[in-house]
Amino acid sequence: MSKKLRIVPLGGLGEIGKNMTVIEFEEHILIVDAGLMFPENDMLGIDLIIPDYQYLLDKRERVKAVLITHGHEDHVGALPHLMKEINAPIYATPLTMGLIEIKLKEAGLAGKVSMKTFQAGDALAIGPFLVEPFHVAHSIPDCVGFGITTPVGLVVHTGDYKFDHTPVDGWAPDFAKLAEFSARGVLCLLADSTNAERPGWTPSEAVITQAFDDLFKRAEGRIIVASFASLISRIQQVANAAAKYNRKLAITGRSMRENTKMARRLGYLDIPDGMLIDIEQVNKYPANQVAVMATGSQGEPTSVMGRLAHGRHRNLRIQPGDTVVLSAHTIPGNEEFVSRIINRLMQQGADVVYEHIAQVHVSGHASREEMKLMINLVRPRFFVPIHGELRHLVQHGKIAQEMGIAADHIAVVENGTILELTEDKLTVGERLPGGYVFVSGESVGDIDIPVMRDREKLAENGFFMVAVSLDEKGKVRKRPRIITRGFANLEKEQAEGLLEGAEEVVTRTLSIYQAGSEVLETRIEEALSRYLYTETGRRPLIYVIVQ
Amino acid sequence: MSKKLRIVPLGGLGEIGKNMTVIEFEEHILIVDAGLMFPENDMLGIDLIIPDYQYLLDKRERVKAVLITHGHEDHVGALPHLMKEINAPIYATPLTMGLIEIKLKEAGLAGKVSMKTFQAGDALAIGPFLVEPFHVAHSIPDCVGFGITTPVGLVVHTGDYKFDHTPVDGWAPDFAKLAEFSARGVLCLLADSTNAERPGWTPSEAVITQAFDDLFKRAEGRIIVASFASLISRIQQVANAAAKYNRKLAITGRSMRENTKMARRLGYLDIPDGMLIDIEQVNKYPANQVAVMATGSQGEPTSVMGRLAHGRHRNLRIQPGDTVVLSAHTIPGNEEFVSRIINRLMQQGADVVYEHIAQVHVSGHASREEMKLMINLVRPRFFVPIHGELRHLVQHGKIAQEMGIAADHIAVVENGTILELTEDKLTVGERLPGGYVFVSGESVGDIDIPVMRDREKLAENGFFMVAVSLDEKGKVRKRPRIITRGFANLEKEQAEGLLEGAEEVVTRTLSIYQAGSEVLETRIEEALSRYLYTETGRRPLIYVIVQ
Repeated sequence: MSKKLRIVPLGGLGEIGKNMTVIEFEEHILIVDAGLMFPENDMLGIDLIIPDYQYLLDKRERVKAVLITHGHEDHVGALPHLMKEINAPIYATPLTMGLIEIKLKEAGLAGKVSMKTFQAGDALAIGPFLVEPFHVAHSIPDCVGFGITTPVGLVVHTGDYKFDHTPVDGWAPDFAKLAEFSARGVLCLLADSTNAERPGWTPSEAVITQAFDDLFKRAEGRIIVASFASLISRIQQVANAAAKYNRKLAITGRSMRENTKMARRLGYLDIPDGMLIDIEQVNKYPANQVAVMATGSQGEPTSVMGRLAHGRHRNLRIQPGDTVVLSAHTIPGNEEFVSRIINRLMQQGADVVYEHIAQVHVSGHASREEMKLMINLVRPRFFVPIHGELRHLVQHGKIAQEMGIAADHIAVVENGTILELTEDKLTVGERLPGGYVFVSGESVGDIDIPVMRDREKLAENGFFMVAVSLDEKGKVRKRPRIITRGFANLEKEQAEGLLEGAEEVVTRTLSIYQAGSEVLETRIEEALSRYLYTETGRRPLIYVIVQ
Repeated sequence: MSKKLRIVPLGGLGEIGKNMTVIEFEEHILIVDAGLMFPENDMLGIDLIIPDYQYLLDKRERVKAVLITHGHEDHVGALPHLMKEINAPIYATPLTMGLIEIKLKEAGLAGKVSMKTFQAGDALAIGPFLVEPFHVAHSIPDCVGFGITTPVGLVVHTGDYKFDHTPVDGWAPDFAKLAEFSARGVLCLLADSTNAERPGWTPSEAVITQAFDDLFKRAEGRIIVASFASLISRIQQVANAAAKYNRKLAITGRSMRENTKMARRLGYLDIPDGMLIDIEQVNKYPANQVAVMATGSQGEPTSVMGRLAHGRHRNLRIQPGDTVVLSAHTIPGNEEFVSRIINRLMQQGADVVYEHIAQVHVSGHASREEMKLMINLVRPRFFVPIHGELRHLVQHGKIAQEMGIAADHIAVVENGTILELTEDKLTVGERLPGGYVFVSGESVGDIDIPVMRDREKLAENGFFMVAVSLDEKGKVRKRPRIITRGFANLEKEQAEGLLEGAEEVVTRTLSIYQAGSEVLETRIEEALSRYLYTETGRRPLIYVIVQ
């Protein structure tokens, strides 16, 4: 029997293999990335989503390493959860490890996890695997993909990548290594599909440098730039523009400040000491001598930009003449939040610059022409598109077919699907149950679909609750207590008489049924439901307690 | 004192003057459009939003006419509400009136409203106004803008428009009329700002004809096209392609079917009788001889496409080989729904075609170069950008400035702002309170912000309710009843002991306080809140009833 390699893309939501991929040979498992996803708009009250790694827990002692491609949330955010379950070292480049350390420290795991720092270009022998991280360009420095030599053959995992010839840190992708893999013969390529619907070639980060230069040259007032806390390259670009045009720079938002400190310490950010000021000092400088970097580019109401837009920031207030730059892509689902922020900032007189009207952000992911180059550089026998929704994987699969890879050598699958590879065959196996785990508050896993459905119903029409107290003879002791929330404002003219009507329905139903009747509560609920629907066209959740 | 004209853009949500604009001279009021908006994702349980026309109700007898530009929901959808309050005729072109009649009939207002049909090019004397509807191109036939000669001057309202030289119905925009207005001298231009962030010129509807021709030529299985029910032009394009490639056409979705019937009757849709089949008949034809048009291009779960994607449609089931075309723009906020539908359809083996990967939809609104043409054709003294969020109005205002209109001749304002125009001055007046009205179920106006906040809280963490029954001596008669929804699945391992713990907290608190104490319920609520937060990190709404 020929040797078998298993590849399993795991959880996250919608996107496949984005947050975690398992590579398994006999009793040896490698995990690539451990990220989290943010919930969709109709996942009410959910803070985070982590991959469902039940599959791993059954064989946790086989895990040899957790390999991390780069330091973004969707690739490292689940580590605080995963590392409570798995006893294996984390492998990452210095900057990525710096970001992970901050994260583990917050989770009280500092010092409890083995951390092995590597450099792109190293070769790591881990169990039966030889892991060769290679440098790729993305929107954060120190990113890698992995060449993993397994007993079945060489697997290449691109991580998130783009072929940027002029990245901010000047470190171009390692084309030579990819060509070398190709020369050795690649069994399987796992490649980033995020932009598979996007024709052409993603613009270089260098175009942003130009856009910021223009903005800084022109702006007469303060400049406030919003981006992601982990977008270290963007912080560098803003710092460079600020330096050139003699502005001080304040960095605000706890996570962005911590990341800046760490990246400067490790040498990934080059900002002169005298240039950084505290956010409290901003008002002491003339408007044309300060720049601010902040979090909140997704319009989150509690972020720095959210508070600024709503006039609720402690130290900063938008004033006419301010230029506000949203230097980030709006994540699908956040469009409404971002639009509100833009409108609010404009209301207060700011000149707002965002991705539709200036090139203040470019994607960190390869477009279709780059995907073709990746496939032709690597020349894999088998191809598994990852990092994208099914729609993106389907398009990426079509590209691979156009490049000459046979349809049965391509696996477009969903999370939890077990892929089995031999030297000459790719088999799509069963799909594991589950998919992802909701995190709400401090609880992990006690929220499930039925609880979510109840939240949806409550959000839809609220609830209407009646408590009736009967004496021993089954007579009503006093007026029923009614508590209702999210249903209607009962003080409004339109709702007049609703409360009295409901009381009457309760009393009338009580008079029909025997006290102590088992169906009494249900009957009152039904009667109330009919009454409220007739009056309002709505169906709140109804509960009746008779005691 | 010089004569004064008032212009007031009204409600809707986010977008300004989109759904309704009031034009007022002394005791005479014209209303332009009466549309509705769909709620944003965090407006829980809200079905629709209509403009807050309180301003009009105070002077409803002054309203002389409700002028309608075209038959889309966001321009006619509030008529069933408005026409219960206002006693004035509706003016519209034949197709638009056909769509309005269907709407009023559903609302039980058929025959109760005066309806005056006009043709583009007519001149209507209404009170002191001369109203001259002129033809514009958009994504539905029979659209107009209005030239309104008032005692103060000529006001031009573009409606929704694009300068499409090759629209589906062959009826190009009326450039001559705009030039004529310009020759007469235009006091004020109110113009569509939707695409003010979009450079260039919006492609013609004709490009879609080509895209459909390619699709129909290539497809070997069934073709299913999703679009808006009121996109009459798109129905024509699909029918044309179906005719050319010898496919029968089934139209499904009640509103789309009704609109098709009406538009054929009025001569706005040209579909041969033998070509249309019922959806039940689709399975009787070979796959390559049928096409289906359906609603649900926004991914609404209960729409035809939603049911198809989830395998819940009564007559139709997606099969490998089907081509599904989403021929519509995804409205901001619906991205997640649409993406889910695309992924689901692909899961079932359909080839899914949508706006990112083929030109199966073009915008119905003018882009920046068209906006410049409109301004230069009309050459207004004053300019008021409408139809767009503040961000779009700001960009449209900048375009007008670039075209030489002075900043103080441009009013970028929000809904409810009263603009006053004399022959030589534009004054931005006070802003009316209010803005829009929520519609939920059959109720209008009894849902307000506090009710929405409760729904948010319920959606966030659910509720936890305890009913305790005491006897006359203040002793607990039996175990407290606990009802909780949307909080946690109490049967899950992670929630073990939570119910017992909560009961204990209740009993303990009862033992501390006197029965009959006024603060008893509050104290139990506080104790429960602390307990549940400690255990889960979440704060459900908590209610305690002691009887």
